[in-house]
Amino acid sequence: MSTVAEPSFLYENLAGDLVRLVAKGTLKPGDRLPSVRQLSHQRNVSVSTVIQAYLLLENRGVVETRPQSGHYVRIPREPAAPEPRAPRASCQATRVTVSDLVARMYGAMRDPNIVPLGAGSLSPLLLPTESLNRRMAAVARAAGGAGVRYDPPPGHLGLRRQIAKRAAGFDVALRPDDIVTTVGAMEALHVSLRAVASAGDTVAVESPAYYGLLQLIEGLGMRAVEIPTNAGTGMDLDLLEAALKVHRVKACLVVTNFSNPTGALMPDDAKRALVQMLAKREIPLIEDDIYGDLYFGEVRPRPARAFDRDGLVLLCSSFSKTLAPGYRVGYVAPGRFQERVERLKFAQTIATPSLPQMAIADFLEHGGYERHLRRLRRSLADQVARVSAAITSRFPQGTRISRPQGGFVLWVELPSNKNALELHSRALAEGISLAPGPIFSAKQRFGSCFRVSCGFPWSDAIDRSIATVARIAAEI
Amino acid sequence: MSTVAEPSFLYENLAGDLVRLVAKGTLKPGDRLPSVRQLSHQRNVSVSTVIQAYLLLENRGVVETRPQSGHYVRIPREPAAPEPRAPRASCQATRVTVSDLVARMYGAMRDPNIVPLGAGSLSPLLLPTESLNRRMAAVARAAGGAGVRYDPPPGHLGLRRQIAKRAAGFDVALRPDDIVTTVGAMEALHVSLRAVASAGDTVAVESPAYYGLLQLIEGLGMRAVEIPTNAGTGMDLDLLEAALKVHRVKACLVVTNFSNPTGALMPDDAKRALVQMLAKREIPLIEDDIYGDLYFGEVRPRPARAFDRDGLVLLCSSFSKTLAPGYRVGYVAPGRFQERVERLKFAQTIATPSLPQMAIADFLEHGGYERHLRRLRRSLADQVARVSAAITSRFPQGTRISRPQGGFVLWVELPSNKNALELHSRALAEGISLAPGPIFSAKQRFGSCFRVSCGFPWSDAIDRSIATVARIAAEI
Repeated sequence: MSTVAEPSFLYENLAGDLVRLVAKGTLKPGDRLPSVRQLSHQRNVSVSTVIQAYLLLENRGVVETRPQSGHYVRIPREPAAPEPRAPRASCQATRVTVSDLVARMYGAMRDPNIVPLGAGSLSPLLLPTESLNRRMAAVARAAGGAGVRYDPPPGHLGLRRQIAKRAAGFDVALRPDDIVTTVGAMEALHVSLRAVASAGDTVAVESPAYYGLLQLIEGLGMRAVEIPTNAGTGMDLDLLEAALKVHRVKACLVVTNFSNPTGALMPDDAKRALVQMLAKREIPLIEDDIYGDLYFGEVRPRPARAFDRDGLVLLCSSFSKTLAPGYRVGYVAPGRFQERVERLKFAQTIATPSLPQMAIADFLEHGGYERHLRRLRRSLADQVARVSAAITSRFPQGTRISRPQGGFVLWVELPSNKNALELHSRALAEGISLAPGPIFSAKQRFGSCFRVSCGFPWSDAIDRSIATVARIAAEI
Repeated sequence: MSTVAEPSFLYENLAGDLVRLVAKGTLKPGDRLPSVRQLSHQRNVSVSTVIQAYLLLENRGVVETRPQSGHYVRIPREPAAPEPRAPRASCQATRVTVSDLVARMYGAMRDPNIVPLGAGSLSPLLLPTESLNRRMAAVARAAGGAGVRYDPPPGHLGLRRQIAKRAAGFDVALRPDDIVTTVGAMEALHVSLRAVASAGDTVAVESPAYYGLLQLIEGLGMRAVEIPTNAGTGMDLDLLEAALKVHRVKACLVVTNFSNPTGALMPDDAKRALVQMLAKREIPLIEDDIYGDLYFGEVRPRPARAFDRDGLVLLCSSFSKTLAPGYRVGYVAPGRFQERVERLKFAQTIATPSLPQMAIADFLEHGGYERHLRRLRRSLADQVARVSAAITSRFPQGTRISRPQGGFVLWVELPSNKNALELHSRALAEGISLAPGPIFSAKQRFGSCFRVSCGFPWSDAIDRSIATVARIAAEI
């Protein structure tokens, strides 16, 4: 159903051929695949095309690489590093207090000498930095008064038009006037939460959840009820339904596509069920879709908003994970809460900065945004596969690791006797940042988990850092 | 004590000479001054220099212009248009609800055909639009990764250095690390309020107060206790002290220099007294100093922060009233609340946009900001004088008008039988926006007042609009 057309690439065709051979049984689990050089020769494609195809298949769990040996069709079995487990359900809403932990982590990450495995944003090396900044320069030179004037809510019309046009490509029907531009997705989430809930109210969130969302809830004096979230398919809807019976939940906040930190992708059926479950109770769903464009598969996953018939889904997103975090341009399509969101946005920051909106609108219209996204998705799939392989091969027996189908973070669960906060402190002492599990929970669960970012090009330094973290993990 | 050095201009010298002649008694109240042409001839200066000198003296209340007659030394008396009265004290804290009124007003102001006498921001014609946008272009071209990366709280160091340097010029000692950059002053005020108070708490504000501040308090579920504010010297400190005895005030929010809408300027003694009164009770003062650079007199007025010894004054400001509202760059010096403010800022919008901060830092360092401010102050003094004269000469007997010594708004009080909301509606029907009094009060007082902006170059169209509003005011 996606209309974001995708030309296919040589390596994708090659990977597709290999998958078909496995499906037909021509290639069997455990079979050794041709070496990179052989296959390049056989198929008359470049060596790098074969490497990319093998990485893609490795990432999709079709192929495995055995060190010093070669590529094999993966044997279906309990893999060396299974996925982390969802937490147990809990029936208590919690006053949120993760800020101290997060502040400590960020303090450390300011240091440019630290290897930022804990970072939540992409390296500028993966972003179209030069071409976007050039567009900003051109837009600024031509803007005149429009560059310095307020562009009050709903925000820059040209940008809202581009956002509406793209949304149609993943089955979300929006008019430009259905969109309010914001200072990044964080402001979108902030005004959305304030539009539907007040201090003291309870909000259902994933567990683990992005600490920024927990801080937001904490700052607004709201309570979080944590719904166990599976690293594969996202929030457990049975447990959500159970929680809705116990708590007076005023809103539900979910990262539906490639959630942070688990990488979970809710299937369409689950999204539809979530929307319907909440609509039956008139509970607004605040959907954070910042990673939706970073899918590794064939099709851009739909947001839950695509299944909304009641105006109850507030769809939030931004360009911070795909173009430029520092431009601080995001948006919300607030459904039936449009007016309230516009007023709250006005009261919080009056307007979103004009020139960054204009530059991004221009880039979306003329800058090759889709082309950039294709490149970026390939890079991220590759990096996730490499970091994942490095962790799988080096970490202690019993370590579990997520297998995200998009985004750029991995969620790692150490054997249960290992403490991730200790790992975090000791890694930091050796110049490596990690995001320790407890910051992803209002209850400070996930004491043996941590998040690793793959948002930077693979390098020997990263390889060495992972080896260092693995050594510390073995020691503690 | 100001170290923002000011070269003097010919018309200022001329005005100074005339003031000395009045002070010595050579010129007496009621004396007719030489005509513009005569004085230009006598002093060997241009006609426009004399006009500027007379406007300046008119604005300072030394000279008055009698239509068809000429300029006279003002006779000290109850002037034709005295200053609006401060409201009576009230002992109730109020849940704030001005958003509906404000939304209605803003809806109308989107229309470019409306004469924006109600606007709160300056015309781009008065701002260094081209040169600032050019700097943005140059900065964007050279920025590389720094342009697209987050610059998390406290924000861009180069900008914080420039802000600290300027603050020293008006007796506020700040290190760059004492400053947190924000998305305009609104975000600065927002995080400041959240840092020191919670939903349900009571905040003391001026009355009348800028509606954006009232909306902020409303949005945070706090209560406002309105302290009557004199259009000359600002908040009535005796009444504030009385209110502090009755209410558990958690913060006090004041625009100390050229408050909006009254234009009030608190004298240094009052600022010192305010700071001491609050410090005695450990109540934080959130000071909004966005108009401080727009003084018409000789010296940049100090903020109350200059008198703070306890880290209890959170000084907020921005470049929205002097450079570019649409760049959305402001800041707060949060005193002892630094850490809390940094965290709230992070949770709200993660970071202030990078390139706008870099462009403004560059403009402050190399762009002739002080030169621009001198020009801007002259323009605003001129425009305020002209709009003020037009209102004084045309509005019904009994109309009162503020005499601001800086900023660009006038506060007008109609005779008490006139309704400003009706004036507002009828003016809007004739294509003219005004800011009606009730939006400046949580209690929707000031039913016979309105605010007029002088933030655009004087023109025949504005002259005609004021005539139209005067006619409507006479009719209602």
